[in-house]
Amino acid sequence: MKYNQYAYVKTDHEQEVKELIDINFLPRNYEDWSFSDLLAKLVKMTLAEAKSDEAKTAKLAEFAVTESQTLADFLADKPEKIGTNEFYNVALQLLGYHVHYDYDLADPTAFMQRNALPVVKDITNVAQLITAFYRLLNTRSKNGQILLDVMAGKGYFTQFWGQNKFMFFNGKALPVFDTNKVIREVVYVETDLDTDQDGKSDLVQVTIFRPRETTAGLKVPALYTASPYFGGIIANEKRNHKVDENLSDATEWNDPQYVASPIVKAAKPAAEDKPATEKAVHKSSYPLNEYLLARGFASVFAGGIGTRGSDGLRITGAPEETESAKEVIEWLHGDRIAYTDRTRKHETKASWCNGNIGMTGRSYLGTLQIAVATTGVAGLKTVVSEAAISSWYDYYREHGLVIAPEDCQGEDLDLLAETCQSNLWDAGSYLKIKPKYDAMQKDLLTKEDRTTGQYSDYWEARNYRHHTDGIKCSWISVHGLNDWNVKPKNVYKIWQKVKNLPIKHHLFLHQGPHYNMNNLVSIDFTDLMNLWFVHELLGLKNNADKQWPTVMIQDNLEADKWHEEKDWADDLGQEVVYYPTDSQELTKDGNGKEKQSFTDVGGKEFTAAIISESDWQYKFICGDEKWSKPSLRFTTDEFIHPVTIVGRPEVKVRVAGSLPKGQLSVALVELGDRKRLTATPKFLMRGGQELGYRFGTDTLQEFMPDKLTKAKLITKAHMNLQNYQDMKKPSKLEAGQFVDLTFKLQPTYYTIPSGSSLALIIYSTDQGMTKRPLEDETYTIDLAQTEIKFYQK
Amino acid sequence: MKYNQYAYVKTDHEQEVKELIDINFLPRNYEDWSFSDLLAKLVKMTLAEAKSDEAKTAKLAEFAVTESQTLADFLADKPEKIGTNEFYNVALQLLGYHVHYDYDLADPTAFMQRNALPVVKDITNVAQLITAFYRLLNTRSKNGQILLDVMAGKGYFTQFWGQNKFMFFNGKALPVFDTNKVIREVVYVETDLDTDQDGKSDLVQVTIFRPRETTAGLKVPALYTASPYFGGIIANEKRNHKVDENLSDATEWNDPQYVASPIVKAAKPAAEDKPATEKAVHKSSYPLNEYLLARGFASVFAGGIGTRGSDGLRITGAPEETESAKEVIEWLHGDRIAYTDRTRKHETKASWCNGNIGMTGRSYLGTLQIAVATTGVAGLKTVVSEAAISSWYDYYREHGLVIAPEDCQGEDLDLLAETCQSNLWDAGSYLKIKPKYDAMQKDLLTKEDRTTGQYSDYWEARNYRHHTDGIKCSWISVHGLNDWNVKPKNVYKIWQKVKNLPIKHHLFLHQGPHYNMNNLVSIDFTDLMNLWFVHELLGLKNNADKQWPTVMIQDNLEADKWHEEKDWADDLGQEVVYYPTDSQELTKDGNGKEKQSFTDVGGKEFTAAIISESDWQYKFICGDEKWSKPSLRFTTDEFIHPVTIVGRPEVKVRVAGSLPKGQLSVALVELGDRKRLTATPKFLMRGGQELGYRFGTDTLQEFMPDKLTKAKLITKAHMNLQNYQDMKKPSKLEAGQFVDLTFKLQPTYYTIPSGSSLALIIYSTDQGMTKRPLEDETYTIDLAQTEIKFYQK
Repeated sequence: MKYNQYAYVKTDHEQEVKELIDINFLPRNYEDWSFSDLLAKLVKMTLAEAKSDEAKTAKLAEFAVTESQTLADFLADKPEKIGTNEFYNVALQLLGYHVHYDYDLADPTAFMQRNALPVVKDITNVAQLITAFYRLLNTRSKNGQILLDVMAGKGYFTQFWGQNKFMFFNGKALPVFDTNKVIREVVYVETDLDTDQDGKSDLVQVTIFRPRETTAGLKVPALYTASPYFGGIIANEKRNHKVDENLSDATEWNDPQYVASPIVKAAKPAAEDKPATEKAVHKSSYPLNEYLLARGFASVFAGGIGTRGSDGLRITGAPEETESAKEVIEWLHGDRIAYTDRTRKHETKASWCNGNIGMTGRSYLGTLQIAVATTGVAGLKTVVSEAAISSWYDYYREHGLVIAPEDCQGEDLDLLAETCQSNLWDAGSYLKIKPKYDAMQKDLLTKEDRTTGQYSDYWEARNYRHHTDGIKCSWISVHGLNDWNVKPKNVYKIWQKVKNLPIKHHLFLHQGPHYNMNNLVSIDFTDLMNLWFVHELLGLKNNADKQWPTVMIQDNLEADKWHEEKDWADDLGQEVVYYPTDSQELTKDGNGKEKQSFTDVGGKEFTAAIISESDWQYKFICGDEKWSKPSLRFTTDEFIHPVTIVGRPEVKVRVAGSLPKGQLSVALVELGDRKRLTATPKFLMRGGQELGYRFGTDTLQEFMPDKLTKAKLITKAHMNLQNYQDMKKPSKLEAGQFVDLTFKLQPTYYTIPSGSSLALIIYSTDQGMTKRPLEDETYTIDLAQTEIKFYQK
Repeated sequence: MKYNQYAYVKTDHEQEVKELIDINFLPRNYEDWSFSDLLAKLVKMTLAEAKSDEAKTAKLAEFAVTESQTLADFLADKPEKIGTNEFYNVALQLLGYHVHYDYDLADPTAFMQRNALPVVKDITNVAQLITAFYRLLNTRSKNGQILLDVMAGKGYFTQFWGQNKFMFFNGKALPVFDTNKVIREVVYVETDLDTDQDGKSDLVQVTIFRPRETTAGLKVPALYTASPYFGGIIANEKRNHKVDENLSDATEWNDPQYVASPIVKAAKPAAEDKPATEKAVHKSSYPLNEYLLARGFASVFAGGIGTRGSDGLRITGAPEETESAKEVIEWLHGDRIAYTDRTRKHETKASWCNGNIGMTGRSYLGTLQIAVATTGVAGLKTVVSEAAISSWYDYYREHGLVIAPEDCQGEDLDLLAETCQSNLWDAGSYLKIKPKYDAMQKDLLTKEDRTTGQYSDYWEARNYRHHTDGIKCSWISVHGLNDWNVKPKNVYKIWQKVKNLPIKHHLFLHQGPHYNMNNLVSIDFTDLMNLWFVHELLGLKNNADKQWPTVMIQDNLEADKWHEEKDWADDLGQEVVYYPTDSQELTKDGNGKEKQSFTDVGGKEFTAAIISESDWQYKFICGDEKWSKPSLRFTTDEFIHPVTIVGRPEVKVRVAGSLPKGQLSVALVELGDRKRLTATPKFLMRGGQELGYRFGTDTLQEFMPDKLTKAKLITKAHMNLQNYQDMKKPSKLEAGQFVDLTFKLQPTYYTIPSGSSLALIIYSTDQGMTKRPLEDETYTIDLAQTEIKFYQK
């Protein structure tokens, strides 16, 4: 398994020496040292757990240089050079690998090559020895962290605690801040909103974790995570809406309107700056923030309107939500008032902040980064938005249908709003807010319009992609290509706009579902983020903007292979069109002539069978006899060469339903018995990554080849037959009326290996995502007017 | 769900007042305060997150006293009393419950009753108010911890950091130690062993976590965990032995002998006492230890011989292992040398230790408590042994058969020894030890004798139950009644001896598999352990020895019900005998007359089916047609009244096999469609328990009624037909020869609810535990000579 590394910055020898001396690793007078003494010294320096020279010396006997000699014995002969094998036998131990179990003392570099670990050859003088150690300290250990971070986890950098300044090594910030003394405090930002309509501006609770060193005058950047879940989650899955119901006539649609809440302008900040009087009880929810906090970056969390400790109503997705999230940045940047408590008596300032703010977070937390970025708020320098929604319609709806995020059948915007309305848990707020909250819930439920599933002004107000012109900060998007919760369309569509803006922009696509990627084996994402935030928020010229390709895409066959691309779009590939034949083939040679039918039975058999949605999906795509009945399937021959599908495949279908309403689904599936990657990464060393020195841990993980499966879903899409004329407006439909539908499927980057074939499945009810009608409907497909087009590399 | 509480010590009013004043909760001059001022003050004191009186006052508006009044409004009227409902509406919020979602403001005490939370009524004067708060601070919150521990997690007790003394509240130690400054160090204890036969006594690495306050002269007790896994785990499941093989003729047995390793006596300690020079890199592995570390108890971990950082070979289960674990206590008690590093140059003493040592840990770590306790070593005052092995034969063998621990098919003692031989990861040790290790592995493999499965001198040396007379410390055993890894016989059989020793002894039996119980909803085990260790290791007279019943057993129908018993033995119940009939019934009325047969097919169908062992077991006990074929089953009528089976059921079977060898299994199963408890506890608030102040967390959990199942295994046993004469000696067997076997099944405490029935299953191959022969064998049971006897309440 390759430990790929993109965050290592090429460094000249002079700089290597300087940096090594600055961190007290290399003796200042190193030129006076013999080769063997220096070798011993540098190995000992890495043994941060041994506190005396005697203790360090004792440990040299625990290293093997060859199959018959320990490092202690080797050094006793006062060598003036060290062979590549000898050096890396020791180095691999320092990196946490185990002799015999991981690598062979006879050939360490063979193992290093397999793991993509860098080797410095011919260590025959002190300069080369220094270079070898510089590179080694920057080499990823078995636990995924660079050796320097492993040493940090053993306390190496506590020697610099209290120096009150940032330190850097190879362009990245070092954990030189006293994490025992982190300040954790709570303040209340005054917004311009009055969502609870009490005539007073809503206060929003903000939690800050910042280095103690900021009390001694150091100013630091803030990593701000707008997390609606921070105050707690109201569990309400049991109230999820009924999905076992018939479709309605979509022309009942009445274009529900978004209506803005009242505004109560807050005053501008005055001179007062009292210290915070409340300590944080909530915790940082993201290891990447903790890792960076140990390195000097403050972590700031705020739930926003409606969440615990804050005023107001949770109007999920609405402009008010964006505003409340944005205004926290205004306070961080010095442009807005915060109070020490909810009585609004004393103002308190973010005087510890250097005015440069980055945002982090996944899912809803990533979504709010997109939202805030579109406001162009002053102080926001960069966002690292993971698995984010770019339009709420694309989260809960698709092409005129109610479509659930994976594993969330029946969930909708109103329920998510309830989930986050955690200020109901503060009984004082509860007494005041409950009636207004109930009214808002009713309004959300009505306007989200589960009846017709159509786009409307209500959803338009929740589409951030219409405001990308406002974006001024640099941009990193991260998304899982198998994310069926926040589907890839969300990142793809905003990427098409962001990539044309005059801002730095990057995209990472991994093989996970709705997941982070900061602790994968195959890429040093955490180190990249260190480099990035140092560049964007501290202004260090560390090459971060040119260090790695614009688009990085994890391979779906080999998890430790990352494709380096300039873009993610159709035009990465060549157009190819396949046609269904009368005999259920999918070929490039031309269409079938028949009209073929299937009868959809809704959720009838599924609910009777008591199987999970994912079980259903697997059986369905595999072509299991029982489950594949209500579908048409067309399959290619086995591929002789691998083919990579890029961008958004498009399916055209001419279809008629037996009722005056209908929903059609199309899926693209890879068929072939093979061991595919695990759906979620496997944990490799639980808690094995130290984020600082005794300051929380994270776990290395990676997608791994797993047990044999028969098929894998590549992409799919769903559409309301009544949207045959316009995706944003329903039309009348007659029973039996043929209509032409054009599906843009979820975007992908998927390699079909040789030996597998590709199948197009046309069906209706998707048990895990669509409504599941109670009535049967027969769908007839005109094969002569049906095709699939995609772009392939 | 009941939050039962056993660790609350009844306290008189005078003592309540004293304790509340001592922790700066109650103002010294409280008698000068008005009722309403004192009520406000005490609520504010619990709000440890608010640091100023202003911030605390602001928060009073967040509490509701009634459906229409906040606490702030209520207090504004200067009340001279508070109603029970009003008080507990506030109290429940303080305990972390949520208005509307958890309880109803109109009737808080109804909720409290359901959760078994104590209520102090009629709070009409200051004395009653004080009592109500004293009880409230000692009441378990929603997260399972008492409110005082929740406040500790918000930093309440940091005001006492640096005072260098223990503090107690309601008989339990308080977290008043500065956990930011915990000392984590490593020393090397010199043993009397030379298991690696290098002529030098083996050193054993010991890791100590102790309060910084011990450097200022405070002496503290040590909680010692002997953990062979502490240095790391060598993953070797892939080398597990083959179990798909035929039985052998057991008379090939040759009684393999245990042979002791050489001894090299260590010198006695001298005067030298250097500070440790190595810091710990490994971590505490048990939240209970961390919880107690914050409360002043040092945590000491040692892997023992053969583990990382230590010399020697891992001879699992052997007296050498016991010795190496015991000698750490001798150092803690001042009776043995430890060095600062492996060069043995400088001695270092446990001068921070008050000489009182307790042991903690589960599984192998619990096993070593039993082992060490039998030595009667000075300094060891108590053990809390969880899910421990009391005889290694009972872990890997049963009645002349190779029987695997659950989910460990093919594992054996040699492989466990390899798992723990983590000093092979130190390359210096590897070079030296590997050849000796290989020889030892060969010896273990031979002598464990997977061929015959018989008891021998080798196993006799690994049976701690023959040495219980040496036990001098007090004793707590904890075991899961569904532990099929370390089966309940292990705890049952040693309990029968321990209960007759002149020592304090307790037993907890929970409904888990191989699990801890320190964070269950249904019992305050962590608090009990606080009380216990304070009593045993600090000598505080806190009633710990009389605070809870000798034997506590969790109910298998209602997880929040604990049976309070004097003992766990057959004689808790009345004997009852059931007989199998010719028509597959199980009745009290008399035997069938037939001889009935089944043909065992070994693992043939199981391995072909590619299902998990647990899937097999569930289908098998349910009577699934395919899987139940190779068995005989006899079932009672549905029970009209619930019946509790206690102790060890006994099954007598007259059986003949078609081969001159054979293995027979018997299982007792409850049949009935109902929602049974989850197999493992459900996590309720992940990470919601603070172990100190920003010092690690634990998660509240409990067994919960789960989805409907058809059957549940109560107990089972397996036997080699060749042991029909003697459990410790095989006999010749002829094909077709009838023999009488008497099975003692695993002990239990299992309530069969009315409506369920009881089934006796007689079978041979147990896919998850026995060998799985390649050849068929037909077993004929003489029903006239077959019966099951058990004790019922």
